Amino acid sequence: MKLSARNVMPGKVVSVTKGATTAHVKIEVAAGFVVTASITNEAAEALGLEVGKAATAIVKASDVIVGVD
Amino acid sequence: MKLSARNVMPGKVVSVTKGATTAHVKIEVAAGFVVTASITNEAAEALGLEVGKAATAIVKASDVIVGVD
Amino acid sequence: MKLSARNVMPGKVVSVTKGATTAHVKIEVAAGFVVTASITNEAAEALGLEVGKAATAIVKASDVIVGVD
Amino acid sequence: MKLSARNVMPGKVVSVTKGATTAHVKIEVAAGFVVTASITNEAAEALGLEVGKAATAIVKASDVIVGVD
Amino acid sequence: MKLSARNVMPGKVVSVTKGATTAHVKIEVAAGFVVTASITNEAAEALGLEVGKAATAIVKASDVIVGVD
Amino acid sequence: MKLSARNVMPGKVVSVTKGATTAHVKIEVAAGFVVTASITNEAAEALGLEVGKAATAIVKASDVIVGVD
Repeated sequence: MKLSARNVMPGKVVSVTKGATTAHVKIEVAAGFVVTASITNEAAEALGLEVGKAATAIVKASDVIVGVD
Repeated sequence: MKLSARNVMPGKVVSVTKGATTAHVKIEVAAGFVVTASITNEAAEALGLEVGKAATAIVKASDVIVGVD
Repeated sequence: MKLSARNVMPGKVVSVTKGATTAHVKIEVAAGFVVTASITNEAAEALGLEVGKAATAIVKASDVIVGVD
Repeated sequence: MKLSARNVMPGKVVSVTKGATTAHVKIEVAAGFVVTASITNEAAEALGLEVGKAATAIVKASDVIVGVD
Repeated sequence: MKLSARNVMPGKVVSVTKGATTAHVKIEVAAGFVVTASITNEAAEALGLEVGKAATAIVKASDVIVGVD
Repeated sequence: MKLSARNVMPGKVVSVTKGATTAHVKIEVAAGFVVTASITNEAAEALGLEVGKAATAIVKASDVIVGVD
């Protein structure tokens, strides 16, 4: 499936931390470059996320804030 | 300022496209790795965004979707 | 691709309105049930969105607000 | 109250799952069509959400991603 | 309607700027305290937003980032 | 750091509630005016958030919904 989201970053899962209802998933999308996602436990299970698995981090352009020093 | 947002990606502006009220800004955060942000024109001007300027792309973990093939 | 987003609603494009940088796309996901998306023009073009085309509206659970009367 | 959010989907609560701080609420907005919301426990309690109660799922157009196969 | 969104800030519209598809609306929610919203033109028109009109700014807790110096 | 987010509200932390993975933080940004943020526990710890500490609530304009009665 092609997505309208402008930021599609394929990588590999480096950690999955499940809470009571919400899981945090870290995906390494480039060497030393890790993206953190907060998703439902239900989703983490449905996708079978586990360390080492290939996964893609997806972000809509309207969810990106820009900062300058 | 330190931010709660888990994804803070410093880089360099590679393009700024202004529309009537909304601007699209592309920031290269690693070699060949570009993040697109959709922000207000007002913000683009307030930050003085222009090609070559250092800028940081910031994304909350709850705004990241995970995909698997 | 399977997505962590809990709301994946396949349907058909019923309108595409492009602005200067932002496009509004309406997708009928059930009879008489239309979802409106605001995406970048760039995305609308990359996906080749046009009236009648099959398309899916995708929403993260954390982006849904609940209201009661 | 009328809302700027373009997607306002009235329905009925079909499940409420509370975690430590975050609750997941499923609302059936059309026959067989269920929307999942992730909200604070505090909100779930303030709204008195429970199975069978009328409730509305609300989504901003800028939070909808579009996909095509 | 009661909303799950934890931040509901009633105020008064102090400006409406329409673009090609997207409008920016500023709402003064306390003396000298202005919140900016980016919404669709369609929504701005449907709500009849204009300077001086009472309006409420609504934000989900999951869309708030926290910063510290 | 200057941010593209149009809503930057400095204040003081009035409560921090940690769950299994997600924390809720309340920041008083004006007298009697409290903003609630839902962030990761990891972020709450990294920022050292605690009652009485100065903190800023940050919201993108595209995450603000407008309501009228």
